[in-house]
Amino acid sequence: MKIGMIGLGRMGSNMARRLMEAGHDCVVHDRSDAAIASLVEDGAEGHGGVADFVAALPQPRTVWLMVPAGAVDETLGALAPHLESGDVVVDGGNSYYIDDLRRSAELKEKGITFLDCGTSGGVWGLDRGYCLMIGGDADAVSRLEPIFAALAPGEGEIVRTPGRPEGRGTAEKGYLHCGPSGAGHFVKMVHNGIEYGLMAAYAEGFAILKAANVGNKTDAPDAETTPLRNPEHYRYDMDLPEIAELWRRGSVISSWLLDLSATALIEDPGLAGFRGHVSDSGEGRWTIKAAIDEGMPVPVLSSALYERFSSRGQSDFADRLLSAMRHEFGGHLEKAVDESKQTVGRNDG
Amino acid sequence: MKIGMIGLGRMGSNMARRLMEAGHDCVVHDRSDAAIASLVEDGAEGHGGVADFVAALPQPRTVWLMVPAGAVDETLGALAPHLESGDVVVDGGNSYYIDDLRRSAELKEKGITFLDCGTSGGVWGLDRGYCLMIGGDADAVSRLEPIFAALAPGEGEIVRTPGRPEGRGTAEKGYLHCGPSGAGHFVKMVHNGIEYGLMAAYAEGFAILKAANVGNKTDAPDAETTPLRNPEHYRYDMDLPEIAELWRRGSVISSWLLDLSATALIEDPGLAGFRGHVSDSGEGRWTIKAAIDEGMPVPVLSSALYERFSSRGQSDFADRLLSAMRHEFGGHLEKAVDESKQTVGRNDG
Amino acid sequence: MKIGMIGLGRMGSNMARRLMEAGHDCVVHDRSDAAIASLVEDGAEGHGGVADFVAALPQPRTVWLMVPAGAVDETLGALAPHLESGDVVVDGGNSYYIDDLRRSAELKEKGITFLDCGTSGGVWGLDRGYCLMIGGDADAVSRLEPIFAALAPGEGEIVRTPGRPEGRGTAEKGYLHCGPSGAGHFVKMVHNGIEYGLMAAYAEGFAILKAANVGNKTDAPDAETTPLRNPEHYRYDMDLPEIAELWRRGSVISSWLLDLSATALIEDPGLAGFRGHVSDSGEGRWTIKAAIDEGMPVPVLSSALYERFSSRGQSDFADRLLSAMRHEFGGHLEKAVDESKQTVGRNDG
Amino acid sequence: MKIGMIGLGRMGSNMARRLMEAGHDCVVHDRSDAAIASLVEDGAEGHGGVADFVAALPQPRTVWLMVPAGAVDETLGALAPHLESGDVVVDGGNSYYIDDLRRSAELKEKGITFLDCGTSGGVWGLDRGYCLMIGGDADAVSRLEPIFAALAPGEGEIVRTPGRPEGRGTAEKGYLHCGPSGAGHFVKMVHNGIEYGLMAAYAEGFAILKAANVGNKTDAPDAETTPLRNPEHYRYDMDLPEIAELWRRGSVISSWLLDLSATALIEDPGLAGFRGHVSDSGEGRWTIKAAIDEGMPVPVLSSALYERFSSRGQSDFADRLLSAMRHEFGGHLEKAVDESKQTVGRNDG
Repeated sequence: MKIGMIGLGRMGSNMARRLMEAGHDCVVHDRSDAAIASLVEDGAEGHGGVADFVAALPQPRTVWLMVPAGAVDETLGALAPHLESGDVVVDGGNSYYIDDLRRSAELKEKGITFLDCGTSGGVWGLDRGYCLMIGGDADAVSRLEPIFAALAPGEGEIVRTPGRPEGRGTAEKGYLHCGPSGAGHFVKMVHNGIEYGLMAAYAEGFAILKAANVGNKTDAPDAETTPLRNPEHYRYDMDLPEIAELWRRGSVISSWLLDLSATALIEDPGLAGFRGHVSDSGEGRWTIKAAIDEGMPVPVLSSALYERFSSRGQSDFADRLLSAMRHEFGGHLEKAVDESKQTVGRNDG
Repeated sequence: MKIGMIGLGRMGSNMARRLMEAGHDCVVHDRSDAAIASLVEDGAEGHGGVADFVAALPQPRTVWLMVPAGAVDETLGALAPHLESGDVVVDGGNSYYIDDLRRSAELKEKGITFLDCGTSGGVWGLDRGYCLMIGGDADAVSRLEPIFAALAPGEGEIVRTPGRPEGRGTAEKGYLHCGPSGAGHFVKMVHNGIEYGLMAAYAEGFAILKAANVGNKTDAPDAETTPLRNPEHYRYDMDLPEIAELWRRGSVISSWLLDLSATALIEDPGLAGFRGHVSDSGEGRWTIKAAIDEGMPVPVLSSALYERFSSRGQSDFADRLLSAMRHEFGGHLEKAVDESKQTVGRNDG
Repeated sequence: MKIGMIGLGRMGSNMARRLMEAGHDCVVHDRSDAAIASLVEDGAEGHGGVADFVAALPQPRTVWLMVPAGAVDETLGALAPHLESGDVVVDGGNSYYIDDLRRSAELKEKGITFLDCGTSGGVWGLDRGYCLMIGGDADAVSRLEPIFAALAPGEGEIVRTPGRPEGRGTAEKGYLHCGPSGAGHFVKMVHNGIEYGLMAAYAEGFAILKAANVGNKTDAPDAETTPLRNPEHYRYDMDLPEIAELWRRGSVISSWLLDLSATALIEDPGLAGFRGHVSDSGEGRWTIKAAIDEGMPVPVLSSALYERFSSRGQSDFADRLLSAMRHEFGGHLEKAVDESKQTVGRNDG
Repeated sequence: MKIGMIGLGRMGSNMARRLMEAGHDCVVHDRSDAAIASLVEDGAEGHGGVADFVAALPQPRTVWLMVPAGAVDETLGALAPHLESGDVVVDGGNSYYIDDLRRSAELKEKGITFLDCGTSGGVWGLDRGYCLMIGGDADAVSRLEPIFAALAPGEGEIVRTPGRPEGRGTAEKGYLHCGPSGAGHFVKMVHNGIEYGLMAAYAEGFAILKAANVGNKTDAPDAETTPLRNPEHYRYDMDLPEIAELWRRGSVISSWLLDLSATALIEDPGLAGFRGHVSDSGEGRWTIKAAIDEGMPVPVLSSALYERFSSRGQSDFADRLLSAMRHEFGGHLEKAVDESKQTVGRNDG
């Protein structure tokens, strides 16, 4: 098929390349001429103008957007006037599924079909393929199946799920029509919510292992640390890179995120190259909001999100209020006392 | 009654004073001569030597310990050889109730009764009285009732609990025999566990209020903040001292901790005088351990404890591992990219 | 002043009574004639028709709505056509502050001022007064001050906050203009979010105390309980009503919610009259959503909300998936094995 | 090598079989004659008496224990008198690492070396191999390397970690000497703690997906559910088995636990065969206790554990206290009111 790709960042450019490798023709567009040029070198047809870009596509047209969530409305605003009834636009980025509902309704008025497609895989996707979670009109999804199949990993060497009937559906090939408009990004949203939880579980576990030597510390106990009751229980210097590697082999907790942890730890066992100010994208937040609307308890996913907030200093004011309350236990006259000098455990109630 | 008090820190010295104000006689002992002298000035009999201290008490003796949890064994080691069968020792500090079980068994071999007494009230206790949670032998508790009654707040002006029968017990006076050895410190432990939860609930709530103006920030969105979808919903500059004051009046969340928050906020609305490195004492930790032994879910109390850990930088390694995993999504070749430069939401999965 | 009150449920009727006791005149309206009649008996002027109700009020009119959040739009729809420029409507219910923004903008087009007023106090408010958190136009708030002052508790016998300047503001009287439109309900929202956290902290703590006797259980350990390592540490039969009473006296965790707990426990120590299916209203949920928008970590407030969700069986599917995963560890051939028969700890990884 | 295996349950018997398949000789012992007979049939030498069992092993002997954690002391008590200086005992079960410290010290007095070995893999281990986390004396670990290598998965087809030097250690083969006595079970403990977190992240995520159709429910809103503000956002009937399958392909959250989830869901999409009363073994609890000793915040791992507690009804009393407090808001006179009949959101503060 011939498909148009708008947005040639890391994700979009690699997806165009994977499509061309599979024999599809790509017409590409981006704000950056250099980005276009790079794809043209790899065999794409490039256009710096939206009108030319659209004109280069056969009807009914298929345009795949791979732009930041915040740029989708602007991009659609420039694109839609050039499209015609029967055309299909796929938003493959990280949009909020609630925006999909609005956008698909708006485009439908012009006869344009809007599909939402959550895409997982990162830069690994060029080689491994992208996991695609698709929402929107079933006929349009069906028509684009060659595109989805080319982008997705395919069955590869992954062991089949026991008990799964042959021909049950496309999920085994790495793409799935999840439901009507918004369903694709909804599934991707929850995917990222889960991802935060998984990452946090590993992070907390490795942190416990790293601190397994706290019993060796001979520092005089200070005001901010309750002395260890049994320091002899915490005298292990754990080799985190080796433990991460070990767990990749036959353990219940093996996963791709563990593979990445093993890679990170072998390169830099102390992770000194990182500040630990952990960003979060919209999906993690939207996942919690959806859970709250559903009345669904999600303490693990929420805790994972909050750890990221805290990592960026966001709990600062709350922490200071806790210190202030503790200070008040000591009475008005002692304001000058440095909180850090208080004897642990003597003024906690 | 005549009672001995060992440990003349803030708590012990005030308790001795409150006892003397109620007409009891106090014999006091401390490692610090100055501390003893100060109490002697207020009417106590002081002894720098343990033997003299004990000798000054009438049999059966009553000795109240008000020393740090870590000093109890040493103090008992020095004291016990001078005591005799029938004597009573009260540990009024913040000991782990599991230590009470051992200590009471050891002293029982010599005929000495060991009581554990959790004490709440801080420096406010001198005026307000101390809330006393007592464990150990019922007869000994009974014999010491005048002491407990003098230290406790008494009924005061607090409204009686509706439906509570007259003469139901001593709890209304502010002291209670909670059960056998360890029961007093067990109740105090849980008291402090609850206290952490209450403090954290207020701290989180005020933090939400403080940030209610994030929609006013005109900064270009950076990589670590997902842009607000509706900045117009967050344009409130809340007056925290006034809100704390307001909630003290007729609201469901009025409490003594809220009173303290109001005091802290009126003095220093931005809490600039605090670093927000929040200490924790043993009780908060032991509460969670007890809950785990009981198989009791305590997410609120645990979260409150963990916020204190995090406030002291303890989540640093876990945070860096999260950053490292996120970095790996981007592939091996991009190690030099500063994490903070990543576009939010484009490489989360 | 003469004020109109719409909505004569428990809250609205008591508020009208409190206003009349303070010398204000009330014109009342409700869908229920009986509710109107009851207030008329207490001295109010009642009208079953909205037009008559409005006509009975002097200009500029003041109408207080005390209807369920879900009925506010409908009530305003019926009311607004009868109002005129200069009139003021106060929404004293539990509306979402985001709706306040829309409603105040819509009414402003007609020259009508819309105030939002979060109200805390429950049925206790008739006697104790209501804590009022007010948002909207400052002049209108100022004009209605006699109404707010009459509804609020006033200074009463509550000890003044140390360090608070005389005449700092109205918060000491129990009402506060918190900011522009929505600010009142925003503060009330966070108030309830905090309330959930406080309630959960007490609930978890008392649950730990109640289970302090798990070491006495002589049952053969079953598959769902890890055997206690030290049963001798958990042999306390705690008297919860007495402990709740005790903590009301001089302890750091005294509060009005603790007072209520003491009342509930003295009446029914085992709380057998309750199912423990805990409802939640919108505020608790909106608080978490606001925190997420602000990027503010609120693990305690979230955990409290999720406990309520779980209490209503909402974690059922997640729990079954956990069981299913554990089952898969055991291999395909053992589907018939009852999960409850599994030996604890042998197939956890 | 010739090795003795005590404990022929699912794990022990399969491990003996895997050892024999690799060419090692196994002498086996169990309380059950049938279990012994089954292994003898597969080529092992079996003995019902401990003395005979030990006598059949060449010196220095190697005995592997694969018995429940609660039976280790008893087993060692029966075994140790028959052992001699130089012999090695491996505890391959799920013991608490703190017990390893005691046991290794006790056996060391007799010259016997005690190794602890955390074992992951379940019944899958017979084919896939077992992931082994070993603690104790380095020389003994070295001598037993052929045993560990036979039990472990080996390098297999798992992709090497990028950047990992050749010959870095044995972790790539699936076994690792983690440190001195207790280190093996410490690492296994944290492994299971992480496992709980991972499982909970998937469980919460799938639960959100399953409830994505709550907007379709046309029930009149009841007292326990806040009405959905935007039901049109929740009208997706998600196909969970397909989504689980999809995520196995190229997504960031692929893992072995996801593979198991896909298997469970394809067999029984509604998971109707499970009650959702989720057991927990010691490791999950010990992980949290270790984290608390270290002062390490672990909200995700704790939340995962608490969800299991709650799934077994353990939050019942806390929930009822919450209901009781809410009830008290309504005043003394309304005790007869059924909590479930309360209007949502009208008495929450």
